[in-house]
Amino acid sequence: MSITKEQIDNANQGMMAQHETEFQVLQSRLVEKGLPVDHIIDQLQHFQVAIPSWALGAGGTRFGRFSIGGEPRNLSEKIHDVGLIHALTQSAGSISLHIPWDIPEDATTIRTLADSHGILFDAVNSNTFQDQINQTLSYKFGSLCHTDASIRAQAVNHCKEVIDIGQALGSKSLTVWLADGSAFPGQLNFREALERTLGSLKEIYQYLPSDWRLFIEYKPYEPNFYSTVIQDWGTSHLLASECGERAYTLVDLGHHLPNTNIEQIVSTLIWRGKLGGFHFNDSKYGDDDLTVGSIKPYQLFLIFNELVEGMANNKSNNPPLAWMIDASHNLKDPLEDLMQSLEAIRLAYAQALMVDQQRLQEARSTNDVTMAQEILQDAYRSDLRPLIREARRRSGGALHPIAQYRRLGMREVLREQRGLNTVATGL
Amino acid sequence: MSITKEQIDNANQGMMAQHETEFQVLQSRLVEKGLPVDHIIDQLQHFQVAIPSWALGAGGTRFGRFSIGGEPRNLSEKIHDVGLIHALTQSAGSISLHIPWDIPEDATTIRTLADSHGILFDAVNSNTFQDQINQTLSYKFGSLCHTDASIRAQAVNHCKEVIDIGQALGSKSLTVWLADGSAFPGQLNFREALERTLGSLKEIYQYLPSDWRLFIEYKPYEPNFYSTVIQDWGTSHLLASECGERAYTLVDLGHHLPNTNIEQIVSTLIWRGKLGGFHFNDSKYGDDDLTVGSIKPYQLFLIFNELVEGMANNKSNNPPLAWMIDASHNLKDPLEDLMQSLEAIRLAYAQALMVDQQRLQEARSTNDVTMAQEILQDAYRSDLRPLIREARRRSGGALHPIAQYRRLGMREVLREQRGLNTVATGL
Amino acid sequence: MSITKEQIDNANQGMMAQHETEFQVLQSRLVEKGLPVDHIIDQLQHFQVAIPSWALGAGGTRFGRFSIGGEPRNLSEKIHDVGLIHALTQSAGSISLHIPWDIPEDATTIRTLADSHGILFDAVNSNTFQDQINQTLSYKFGSLCHTDASIRAQAVNHCKEVIDIGQALGSKSLTVWLADGSAFPGQLNFREALERTLGSLKEIYQYLPSDWRLFIEYKPYEPNFYSTVIQDWGTSHLLASECGERAYTLVDLGHHLPNTNIEQIVSTLIWRGKLGGFHFNDSKYGDDDLTVGSIKPYQLFLIFNELVEGMANNKSNNPPLAWMIDASHNLKDPLEDLMQSLEAIRLAYAQALMVDQQRLQEARSTNDVTMAQEILQDAYRSDLRPLIREARRRSGGALHPIAQYRRLGMREVLREQRGLNTVATGL
Amino acid sequence: MSITKEQIDNANQGMMAQHETEFQVLQSRLVEKGLPVDHIIDQLQHFQVAIPSWALGAGGTRFGRFSIGGEPRNLSEKIHDVGLIHALTQSAGSISLHIPWDIPEDATTIRTLADSHGILFDAVNSNTFQDQINQTLSYKFGSLCHTDASIRAQAVNHCKEVIDIGQALGSKSLTVWLADGSAFPGQLNFREALERTLGSLKEIYQYLPSDWRLFIEYKPYEPNFYSTVIQDWGTSHLLASECGERAYTLVDLGHHLPNTNIEQIVSTLIWRGKLGGFHFNDSKYGDDDLTVGSIKPYQLFLIFNELVEGMANNKSNNPPLAWMIDASHNLKDPLEDLMQSLEAIRLAYAQALMVDQQRLQEARSTNDVTMAQEILQDAYRSDLRPLIREARRRSGGALHPIAQYRRLGMREVLREQRGLNTVATGL
Repeated sequence: MSITKEQIDNANQGMMAQHETEFQVLQSRLVEKGLPVDHIIDQLQHFQVAIPSWALGAGGTRFGRFSIGGEPRNLSEKIHDVGLIHALTQSAGSISLHIPWDIPEDATTIRTLADSHGILFDAVNSNTFQDQINQTLSYKFGSLCHTDASIRAQAVNHCKEVIDIGQALGSKSLTVWLADGSAFPGQLNFREALERTLGSLKEIYQYLPSDWRLFIEYKPYEPNFYSTVIQDWGTSHLLASECGERAYTLVDLGHHLPNTNIEQIVSTLIWRGKLGGFHFNDSKYGDDDLTVGSIKPYQLFLIFNELVEGMANNKSNNPPLAWMIDASHNLKDPLEDLMQSLEAIRLAYAQALMVDQQRLQEARSTNDVTMAQEILQDAYRSDLRPLIREARRRSGGALHPIAQYRRLGMREVLREQRGLNTVATGL
Repeated sequence: MSITKEQIDNANQGMMAQHETEFQVLQSRLVEKGLPVDHIIDQLQHFQVAIPSWALGAGGTRFGRFSIGGEPRNLSEKIHDVGLIHALTQSAGSISLHIPWDIPEDATTIRTLADSHGILFDAVNSNTFQDQINQTLSYKFGSLCHTDASIRAQAVNHCKEVIDIGQALGSKSLTVWLADGSAFPGQLNFREALERTLGSLKEIYQYLPSDWRLFIEYKPYEPNFYSTVIQDWGTSHLLASECGERAYTLVDLGHHLPNTNIEQIVSTLIWRGKLGGFHFNDSKYGDDDLTVGSIKPYQLFLIFNELVEGMANNKSNNPPLAWMIDASHNLKDPLEDLMQSLEAIRLAYAQALMVDQQRLQEARSTNDVTMAQEILQDAYRSDLRPLIREARRRSGGALHPIAQYRRLGMREVLREQRGLNTVATGL
Repeated sequence: MSITKEQIDNANQGMMAQHETEFQVLQSRLVEKGLPVDHIIDQLQHFQVAIPSWALGAGGTRFGRFSIGGEPRNLSEKIHDVGLIHALTQSAGSISLHIPWDIPEDATTIRTLADSHGILFDAVNSNTFQDQINQTLSYKFGSLCHTDASIRAQAVNHCKEVIDIGQALGSKSLTVWLADGSAFPGQLNFREALERTLGSLKEIYQYLPSDWRLFIEYKPYEPNFYSTVIQDWGTSHLLASECGERAYTLVDLGHHLPNTNIEQIVSTLIWRGKLGGFHFNDSKYGDDDLTVGSIKPYQLFLIFNELVEGMANNKSNNPPLAWMIDASHNLKDPLEDLMQSLEAIRLAYAQALMVDQQRLQEARSTNDVTMAQEILQDAYRSDLRPLIREARRRSGGALHPIAQYRRLGMREVLREQRGLNTVATGL
Repeated sequence: MSITKEQIDNANQGMMAQHETEFQVLQSRLVEKGLPVDHIIDQLQHFQVAIPSWALGAGGTRFGRFSIGGEPRNLSEKIHDVGLIHALTQSAGSISLHIPWDIPEDATTIRTLADSHGILFDAVNSNTFQDQINQTLSYKFGSLCHTDASIRAQAVNHCKEVIDIGQALGSKSLTVWLADGSAFPGQLNFREALERTLGSLKEIYQYLPSDWRLFIEYKPYEPNFYSTVIQDWGTSHLLASECGERAYTLVDLGHHLPNTNIEQIVSTLIWRGKLGGFHFNDSKYGDDDLTVGSIKPYQLFLIFNELVEGMANNKSNNPPLAWMIDASHNLKDPLEDLMQSLEAIRLAYAQALMVDQQRLQEARSTNDVTMAQEILQDAYRSDLRPLIREARRRSGGALHPIAQYRRLGMREVLREQRGLNTVATGL
């Protein structure tokens, strides 16, 4: 089951009057402020976020998992689900695959299917944190950092295969997240583990096609609860710098110690021209993988403020960033959850585009702290939802995606088609 | 396969000379300090910690699980494993069952088996955080706090059944840990959820045999990542107080926010006569469930210092405490891990028994902060391992349990007997 | 120098056209939603927050303090400054005094002065965390918890004097914040310290006039960095319950461990009828005492959501709450900073009043987590500033308080009148 | 008043018998293990830690300060106090000055005085986080990062003066700790602030004598509570790398976010040859500046374990490290507190020297996690105090420094000589 342009337009019809009124009012206000409304809408329309293939089913915790029903059973159904979200939101124009969970049997067929939904293939993701059935050697004690050279080789080869698969689909980057680390003091020689990891990453980097980029994630803990080899942005940055020009640090919002100033990390990486991309989610405690913007929306805005300002003054030629949602949907319908995330991301982006950078720069140069805060909060407190809706409408999306999704009874249809107890591959 | 008294004695034989030398030296030093060495050894011998039935196999994280091999496949094998640990350490004289993972088919048979290993049945644990196959209603959105009265009733009934099973085995307490909470702001009405939880707990309390106690755990987060109904000791204490005299708070060392002063919580609960017991583990980040004493051994000592002093000045008639290890063994052999935990617990207890309480009290009364620290650190820095070994030896255990376990090749035997890819029930 | 109603009206004049347009649009939208706009404005007008007497000068850290100039040199000047803020914002209708920093020489004169500004006297605050010149005994090792009975007596007597001073001014409550605790393990016997604290508090409670309330603050750390006697809400609640009916817990937003779910604590205390009031501020790391709403505005909204809903369903007869700002102004002009805080508080309150409680309740009863979040975010994402301005305007305040404060060059005037290097008493 | 070699020897006399017994027993045990006892003692004797000039008086918090009495009133008295500690402990052979608090009037006189106590001058410290009386421009909004070039120039010049002063005294390094940062979102342009800081540091680096090193500290927060320009080791490392070969990162144990794995940071910096030195202290919550080893002694041991192993396998030619205590003494006698810190440091170092690195390496290479932990804990649980005492005795120090300090009534003498209400410069 798919959703048609016609269905969306029809549903929009009944809400257009109210939307237009709200949009007019907001537009006038923004024009008064001297903001180029159409240009901003254009920027919003072009802002596309990748959906990870593993986020389309119900996630879980170590304590259990509760099925939502109608979850995609294979890669085609996952692409279908991303297509559904994209049709409604016009902001999820790509998918990020996780190998080996989503190895396509036939790349051409899958590309054609994705194409029909307007979906591209974003960064591909390797998995060396779990043992797959029939896997020769175990990653129990690490992969790229392992003391055993043959296990490192197996992990490096896996990454090369992931690149091959990505190439066949049109991906242009590989994201490496490592669980490698230790559960207890003494277990690892930190220096040697880091050196071995660097060696493995260099091998992968050598294999990278010349138009590809390598993204290196960092994370302080989990699943290892004493140390993680790539524990912070500083370590990731060291490794990326040693690998070469096309290696970058990737920031997952949930991969930080309590109280970390993430926006400053983002800014520092742009300063070095080494920010590769983002995994969006939100969290209160650790890597909680909650809906984007559900816990700390102001922090999300502050991060976007750095991105907008940093990329506008991009002296280090930081390349365009990779955007992906990386959340786990334990209680909500994953598709609804993703649409809430997409809305929160666009909203933060729109707010950041609203910031009066010139006045902010003036306030900063005179250390007018009160005024700097006023300027940021003025943008943040503005209700820019009509702008988001207008951008979506102009792209052919739904004014109110979740409402339409519900009105059309989509989850029920999916349950009927796919069954109640499906488990998405990889979950 | 079991381990015999003879095997243990034989192995001890070769290490007795060194042990006796070390023990004599320590004994002299302690006697000089005026400490009643034999009495302390006696206290150590009597200090028994329960092993939870779910800790005998390899645990895991939401990212995966790596088997250790030879894991117990049923309750009998679990009891066997606890028996093995107890034979070697003489400090693991009970098991704490988790229902429904460990429902005995025949209580008498199981009691007899446990008896043969010198194992008692400690607190029984309910499980209302997962859905079991064939379960009528789902705990996805909570159990004792659920908005739906029929789901609350199902959860309450489950707890009653757990009590029944416990009674048949000789348990005297029920431990309730609830995952109930919310993943997102707005999901729960906090007040009403707490009130419903209290209502359910009261029903369970009513059902409690008159010689039983109810232990109520608290935890700030996980598996719910926005709120947990019983988020801290204050909430648990409120609920226990409302339930009645035989309801107590249970402290799991991993269930606290970063930097919490746990020893002070312990002290406060003893002051109120409301401390029920402990779940021991260690952690660096969250509920990491690492080996006891592997990360913060000084904190463990400080906690025991409160326990020893508090129970010695027990004006509120706090009943004897329930002790249990609650760790997850992701990388180590679970039995080795448990023996390391038992050693760390006994060591912290011995150190606490060493504290010169009278001099400490004097230092406190004159606010001699330097001296108070000196007194605590003097006890902590003492090497009391010979004392632990002597206590173990006197009880018939091994001088060096892990070394003996390895020398006898026990894991290999278990793997042979049970297979390489077993999964303990509940994991 | 003061600000007159005429000055404010004149300044408003030029901005009325824009305000009215914006207000009309918002009003229509709210009316459409079925919201009683005038009633909400009325609630906003009545929402008054106390200004603490110590927040009117530049604060500092242990590393230093930078003067802002023109700071109030005595109580009269402090009241004048609160009067200024109140004239502009119409939301700071009371002052909270700190004794001994602000002992009035003549209570009647001070009351008359406050009266002339429309300022009441809110809770009075004791200080037993510092030694004053000529103080007989030192609080170095605690006050209400001290091992020495004569020091406890001195501290209790101080609190009684604070009550006397408060009575002369028309205050109706005493707020007790204790630094009492320990810097090192071993220093304190936790149980005895808590027991002594309870004894002291009971003495103070006995002295309390019958129409007064006692507010007991909690804080996990600072200035003591190992333990604090009243470390959390659970301990405060215990003490308040033991003291009696008119003793309550007071929540300072900055007094929590990392990641604490404060809104849940608020809700629990209302459930018990034991929430006394709030100290507002914001923080990223610890008790940072930053401008309200400058770091986590969504959390502030969630807290207000609990307050609004809780007080509307107030089954435990929780009395009306005491509201106070408690921030430290290290870099900003304190008066501007306070006006930003007042705005953030009113905004969060307005957003909470906007929440569609009935639909929220429905979503909760069906565990529609997506919808519950949508409902909260709809309120939070609305731009309610025109409503705040309208409430202020109706009360006779300024449409844009900070802008007017700056246009009138008030800080410059204060500097001229009071000098550049003044230090507010107590700083 | 000073302490003589004779006084120390006399006092030792009475305790020699017990010491020798204890030392013999330990020695035998270590020899059995194949450890080179005399070599280890020699390493301990050579391990000297600098005392910062600001740590000799009572510190304080933003809430107040309590005098201890007898505090040093000038640089000479500070050197005298370090001399006292060094005479007793033989492990505090240098002092680290803080400018402008400790500018010597005459360098030669001061050097001679220090010499007479066997005290060298370690790293000098700049202060650009406070405004001094008569200072032209304010550091309120930063120093090396300031938007105003003339303020940056003033701060750079200050650092040059500090180098000059250090040269006259024989120091060989400059430690720069910056409070520079922001209190509120929006205040700073992170990128530009970092770039300006780098520019200023480069100027200072250029001025550095060729045999000097530059140490760059990092800290996540305080006194700025939103952002700090050099927030973590990654940022410090970036800046040090850009400055040049002789610029290094300095680790202060208290300057980390909650739960940071500091030992891993230490290891990574050694791997890069970029670890400059340490500021030792301990903490439970933030930069609490407590006595070393008073809260997390096991973490201290793990850090030393990295240092010992890292410097023994120093492939990147990391230069010898600078060691300094950096604590604040709010409640204890500062000299006693420092002696407790020195003891804890030497103990952790001795434990690390005890680790059986070969067996550890074997356990690691086979991923024998249990055994790796056993090996570390075996070293940590050993009571090595007799070894520390023996090293101290061989160097001519006291067997029990604090006991001797007390027996000689030194604080009382200092109070008599210097008065009760002295305040050390800079406090």
